[in-house]
Amino acid sequence: MADICARHPDRFPAWVASLPMNNVAACLEELTYAIEHRGAKGIQIFTNVNGRPLDEPELAPIFERMHAYDLPIWLHPTRGAKMPDYATESTSKFEIWWLFGWPYETSAAMARMVFSGFFDRWPNLKVITHHMGAMVPYLEARVGLGMDQMGTRTAELDYTSIVKAMREKGRRPLDYFKLFYGDTSVNGSAPAIRCGLEFFGRERALFGTDCPFDPEGGPLFIRETIRAIESLDLPHDVRDLLYAGNVRRLLRLA
Amino acid sequence: MADICARHPDRFPAWVASLPMNNVAACLEELTYAIEHRGAKGIQIFTNVNGRPLDEPELAPIFERMHAYDLPIWLHPTRGAKMPDYATESTSKFEIWWLFGWPYETSAAMARMVFSGFFDRWPNLKVITHHMGAMVPYLEARVGLGMDQMGTRTAELDYTSIVKAMREKGRRPLDYFKLFYGDTSVNGSAPAIRCGLEFFGRERALFGTDCPFDPEGGPLFIRETIRAIESLDLPHDVRDLLYAGNVRRLLRLA
Repeated sequence: MADICARHPDRFPAWVASLPMNNVAACLEELTYAIEHRGAKGIQIFTNVNGRPLDEPELAPIFERMHAYDLPIWLHPTRGAKMPDYATESTSKFEIWWLFGWPYETSAAMARMVFSGFFDRWPNLKVITHHMGAMVPYLEARVGLGMDQMGTRTAELDYTSIVKAMREKGRRPLDYFKLFYGDTSVNGSAPAIRCGLEFFGRERALFGTDCPFDPEGGPLFIRETIRAIESLDLPHDVRDLLYAGNVRRLLRLA
Repeated sequence: MADICARHPDRFPAWVASLPMNNVAACLEELTYAIEHRGAKGIQIFTNVNGRPLDEPELAPIFERMHAYDLPIWLHPTRGAKMPDYATESTSKFEIWWLFGWPYETSAAMARMVFSGFFDRWPNLKVITHHMGAMVPYLEARVGLGMDQMGTRTAELDYTSIVKAMREKGRRPLDYFKLFYGDTSVNGSAPAIRCGLEFFGRERALFGTDCPFDPEGGPLFIRETIRAIESLDLPHDVRDLLYAGNVRRLLRLA
């Protein structure tokens, strides 16, 4: 990917590294090599590591390092049919694991990062969520008012102290969810892009398409995402930030 | 509830029955009693029955009966901390089971109904989804273009035949998801209500609030949901359908 970017800088202005998350030492070595020696502008990770959540302490050095580089982390969902949707079943049917399971993965990973304290530990951590924040923008007021009451649904553990500590910093749980970035990869839905933009705001929404995973094998998602964005009649400056300005700033591109 | 409605018809125009879904015979008896003898205008069920999905053949007589009555089914999510979010864990942390798990439950139940053929078997079945369709409206194009390709992600089972059979009826999987109804219970989020309205259309969106589960114990969700709807500047006829017209038609109220 570094070579492709070097050969076609007009088409491919930057690339990000994929990492062996199951081996933290190798992961750190690879991301240092990719960023410092090959010019990678970020990393892509998945929402779980062989079924483990991203807030396991062993993985912290990876986020620590990315925070120090001040470069973004692309968060991509992953899940297979082996995660059942019902307690009495052993697999997920009808590809629900993909359809809704993937956005659920993204949303759950965001919650784990928020409530385990990622953004208190690494205040400028930049995490770009796929599917424009997945479940969060549509359910923003559930996240807001619902998690203001966090702890009232749980007897065995004291979750109220988490919200109390946030409140002492002048923040609600929802404020932390607004620290993520979202890409416009919602398969060309204008209502969703508008809803997502209202949630993330002009500085934290980024153009993305999920190309080539459409029925045409590439062009459809690009075309439809652009069509959806154009249909929203956004102010010129917001449109420019969405298409290019925000990613230029995040990746420190010329 | 029948008594309350009889005493205060100006405040409580109708009620729906709660059912013992774990016992189908008792369930049928209770719903017949509630509807035919006490005037219930529908039923509320949960997204799973002790962990079992709603498309288990044993439960079919309940949907068959409601289809014959031509009265709606309110679909409410349920899930507890015992459904883990990660393969390596045994419980869901930070109340994610509630925050995102409930809307996931609704979405998964909708998919199970669609792909097991509920709407081919009972074409006029009326299912009202909580949280304005949960994950479906925001991810409408993922449901659309993604499930047009259903089967391509699964080797062990033939899911392509489901989509093929739909296509032979002139329908896409997404068209079936548009047969549900959605309530405006998204905790007062105007962007979500607008996005949901665009998905369900003027005839299939219904006013709902989730009262009294807000931090004020009741008034907040009612007030904020009305505020959100009013902020959308909807055409008068759409607004009237949303607040009253659709539910009057569905419940056959005077």
